[in-house]
Amino acid sequence: MSQVARLTPEEAEFALTSLPEWSIKDGKLRREYRFADFTHAFGFMAAAATAIEKMDHHPEWCNVYGRVTVELWTHSAGGLTARDVRLAQTLEAIAKKLMP
Amino acid sequence: MSQVARLTPEEAEFALTSLPEWSIKDGKLRREYRFADFTHAFGFMAAAATAIEKMDHHPEWCNVYGRVTVELWTHSAGGLTARDVRLAQTLEAIAKKLMP
Repeated sequence: MSQVARLTPEEAEFALTSLPEWSIKDGKLRREYRFADFTHAFGFMAAAATAIEKMDHHPEWCNVYGRVTVELWTHSAGGLTARDVRLAQTLEAIAKKLMP
Repeated sequence: MSQVARLTPEEAEFALTSLPEWSIKDGKLRREYRFADFTHAFGFMAAAATAIEKMDHHPEWCNVYGRVTVELWTHSAGGLTARDVRLAQTLEAIAKKLMP
């Protein structure tokens, strides 16, 4: 996997303008999704898993019932990179199909 | 769903004897699984999701790459119940097939 440069604070702020439901917390790109129930939440995760594996970029994510919390960060760069922004955008597109 | 009684501390300790990889932390039944990679970790979660939905008892679980952390607790009882023990046993059986 090629080295990806860390986003500058300005670049990270700009990326958030295209991801209004996301925030940066403890240096990670973060969103909490709330689906109707476990089936919808896990449906999202299953659809996302394929995209995640294809991108070879893995989130830290937690689920309980209809809630899925996602945190993105690029370990190899020690911070946020364009890969996190791309994965966030991909997750948004998948979630939109399953949101109430 | 019928009301399920909380386990006494003695019952919880006894349940742990059949779940040697699990511990009780902050009142929750907890285990961290380490799979070979994301595909194995998510394979476990996908297989578990079917069992979880069938049992109508939902874990709080987190994944990053090959790691899956599971916490079980019965919200309606305000503590651990036999349902948590049953789900832990079910997860063990599923994980065993996918562990390195």
